Amino acid sequence: MVVVQKFGGTSVADVERIRSVAGRIARARAAGHQVVVVVSAMAGETNRLLALARATASDPDARESDALVATGEQVTAALTALALRDAGVPARSFLGHQIRIETDSAYGKARIVRVDVDRLRSVLADGAVAVVAGFQGVDGQGSITTLGRGGSDTSAVALAAALAADTCEIYTDVEGVYTSDPRMVPQARKLERIAYDEMLELASLGAKVLQIRSVEFAKRYRVPVHVRSSFSEAEGTWVVEEDPTMEEVSVAGVAYDRDEAKLTVLRVPDRPGVAARVFGPIARANIVVDMIIQNASADGTTDLTFTVPRGDYEKAKALLEATARDIGAQGVTGQLDVAKVSIVGVGMRTHAGIAARMFEILSAEGINIQMISTSEIKISVVVDAKYTELAVRTLHDAFIDAAPGKRT
Amino acid sequence: MVVVQKFGGTSVADVERIRSVAGRIARARAAGHQVVVVVSAMAGETNRLLALARATASDPDARESDALVATGEQVTAALTALALRDAGVPARSFLGHQIRIETDSAYGKARIVRVDVDRLRSVLADGAVAVVAGFQGVDGQGSITTLGRGGSDTSAVALAAALAADTCEIYTDVEGVYTSDPRMVPQARKLERIAYDEMLELASLGAKVLQIRSVEFAKRYRVPVHVRSSFSEAEGTWVVEEDPTMEEVSVAGVAYDRDEAKLTVLRVPDRPGVAARVFGPIARANIVVDMIIQNASADGTTDLTFTVPRGDYEKAKALLEATARDIGAQGVTGQLDVAKVSIVGVGMRTHAGIAARMFEILSAEGINIQMISTSEIKISVVVDAKYTELAVRTLHDAFIDAAPGKRT
Repeated sequence: MVVVQKFGGTSVADVERIRSVAGRIARARAAGHQVVVVVSAMAGETNRLLALARATASDPDARESDALVATGEQVTAALTALALRDAGVPARSFLGHQIRIETDSAYGKARIVRVDVDRLRSVLADGAVAVVAGFQGVDGQGSITTLGRGGSDTSAVALAAALAADTCEIYTDVEGVYTSDPRMVPQARKLERIAYDEMLELASLGAKVLQIRSVEFAKRYRVPVHVRSSFSEAEGTWVVEEDPTMEEVSVAGVAYDRDEAKLTVLRVPDRPGVAARVFGPIARANIVVDMIIQNASADGTTDLTFTVPRGDYEKAKALLEATARDIGAQGVTGQLDVAKVSIVGVGMRTHAGIAARMFEILSAEGINIQMISTSEIKISVVVDAKYTELAVRTLHDAFIDAAPGKRT
Repeated sequence: MVVVQKFGGTSVADVERIRSVAGRIARARAAGHQVVVVVSAMAGETNRLLALARATASDPDARESDALVATGEQVTAALTALALRDAGVPARSFLGHQIRIETDSAYGKARIVRVDVDRLRSVLADGAVAVVAGFQGVDGQGSITTLGRGGSDTSAVALAAALAADTCEIYTDVEGVYTSDPRMVPQARKLERIAYDEMLELASLGAKVLQIRSVEFAKRYRVPVHVRSSFSEAEGTWVVEEDPTMEEVSVAGVAYDRDEAKLTVLRVPDRPGVAARVFGPIARANIVVDMIIQNASADGTTDLTFTVPRGDYEKAKALLEATARDIGAQGVTGQLDVAKVSIVGVGMRTHAGIAARMFEILSAEGINIQMISTSEIKISVVVDAKYTELAVRTLHDAFIDAAPGKRT
C-alpha cells in the first residue's frame, strides 16, 4: 500500500515528538507500506516567524512573508528525515519546489495547480521514505508560496491524490472528528466515518480538524482520509465517500462558530443593481460575507442582513454606511455578539422535517432565531451569542444522543 | 555603481539590527548605486539549528543538515527584504536555487560551480534591491547545499564577480583587517589596504575575518572587497590587487593559530612510497595536514613531523601508530600544546633576510622554534603554546611598529 501520513504541529512540537513520529513511520514501513510523510512546522513556529515579520514591517509583503514562514516546515522536514535515518530508515526530505507542488501566486493563500510526483515515486521505488514540507508550494516564477492556515492538510491530500495513495492519514492532537465540540458537549463522541460533504460543512462551520480545501481535494479525487491522533494507536475517523448506511441517522454533527458578526442595511430601495452596490465595496475590501438574508417589504424597500467575520465588523460597517448614504438607504445597524449554530448530516436528504424540529427545539428553550440558512445537508441559524452553548447541547441531545440509529 | 553588500550574523542579530542594516542599504541606493545584498543567518541561529540536528540524530545526514541550516539565511533574507520595503525601498529576497547558485554535492562544504545572475540583473534594472540568502546553493539534483562556515562571504564575492560589481562590501562586527589580533596585541592597527595574497595567508592562518574561499574568488575575478563594520560609518580595509607601494613594508600582519597539534613518526624507513603510506590513512579520515617536515638521517631512517587540527589529534595518533607498526617505524610522539605564529607580507619578496631576522627575534626571547614553513610572502613557525603571546607581540613590535614605512 501507498500511504501518505501527515503530522501536524503538536505532533512534531519538539525533538522528542519528532523521534516518536519517526517510530510510527518506521512501523508503517516495516508493515510493508510505501510511505510519504508530510509535516507541518513545529507548534508555535509559524506564529514566531509571523511575529518576526510584523516586528520588522508594519505591513509585511506577502511574498516575503511566505518565504519566511515556509522555513518552519523545511526545518521539520529535515529533522524528521534525520530522525528516520537515525532509526535506520532510509529517508529524504523535499520542499515544495523540489517535488514539485506548483501553485498560483496568491501568496499566503495559494492554490495548488499541479503536483508532480515522479520524484516521490522514485524515492519510494528505492525503498526510502519521502518527507515533504507541507503548507508550501512554488509559483510559476519560482517564488515560494504558502497555502494558508492548515495548508499542510491540503499538501497531504493533494500528494495522496497524485500518488493514487490507498490512504491519507492526518495525525493531529485529537482522536478524530466528533459529533460536536467535546469541550462544550461532554457527551460528544467520535465518529467512525463521515462523508466528504458532511466534513466540508463541518470544516467550514468552525470545526477546525481539517482545512476545507483538503476535504474538497479528497472528495474530488476520492482519497480516503483517516483523521487520528499521533498520541495514541486508536482508530480515528474515516472521511470517505457517502454510502447508504450514513443516511440512517439524520444528523451527524452539531457545529458552532462564534467568530461572526451581523450587519443590517435598513430600508434599501428595492431596485435592480442595489445588492451589487452594497456588496461590491465589501468584496473589494476582501471581507468574506457568509449568510445573506433579504426581506422585501411592501413599501418598495428591503432590509439586507448578512454576517461577516467578527474581525472585519468595523471595517464593513464603515463601508456600508457610506454605501447607505449613496443609495438612499435609511442606515446601518449591527450586532457583534452573535453565533452561528448548525446541524449537518447527509441523512437530511431523506429525513423530512429536520428543520422544523430544529426550530421547535430552539424555541422550546426560548432561543430566538435571528437568521436561517440551509443547504441540502445542513441547517444553520444565527442566535444571540449567549445562547451558543445551550443551543449546541440541546440540539446534540435531541438529534444525536436521542437518535434511533448511531453512525458507525 | 553596482555594489554587493554582505551582512554577517552579528549585523543582522535581531529585528532592530536588520532595520538598521536596511537603513544603510537604503542610503547606498539613494546615493545612486544598484545594490545586491547577501545576508547570513541571525547570530546564533546556525548553531541552534545544528543543535536541533544533533539532538535528533546521533550522526546527522549531511544533505538533511544542509536543508535544515539553510533556513537560517532564508529567514534573514526575507526579513531584510521586509525591512527594506517597510522603509519604502523596493526589494525582493532570493534563495540559492532561485538565482541560481549552483554547487557540487559536497553537503556542508559545497563549492560553487556556476552562478547565474540574469534574475538579479533584471531586479536591479527594475530599480529594486535584491536580497540573497548567503551560505547556500543548489546542486545538480536540486538539493540544497551549504558552503561551510563563513560561506556567505563566498556567496557575496561570487555574486560580485558574476555581476562584475564595482565593490563587494563585507559588513562585520570589526572595523576591518588588523595587523594582528587586537585582543592580543593592543597596538595592532587597522590596515587600509591588503593584497589578496596577504589576505589569503592571513585567513588561512587563523584570522577569521573572511572565509578563505571568498578571498580566492575575489583574487581570481579581481573583485575589490571592502571589509568594514556595520556598527559604524568608518572606512574599513580594502582587500585589493597588489601594487608596488604595498612592498614598501616587509610585513603586513602577524597571525597565530592555537588550534594545531604536532605529531612525529620516529625513524621511518627511508623508502619510496613510505610517505604515502603514512599520510594515506590520515587523508582518508578527512584530517587536514598542515605543515610537514621530513628530516632524513644518516642511518637510512627519517623523522616525519607534521601538524593537524587539535581536535583530530587523538584520531590521527591512533592511525599513525597502526601505520608505524606496519612500515617498521620506531613509534609515534606528539604534542598538543603548540601554536603556529606567522608573519605575512608581499614585501618579503623584495626585502631580504626577513626569515633570519624573525628567528633572531624569537631566539632573543628564548623561544624555541620547533618547525618552520615558508611561502613567498609568509613565514610560519611552530612554537610551544605558552610562548604564543610573547612571540606575536615581539614580532609585531619589530616588524610593524618599528618598521620604517607604514602600509597605507
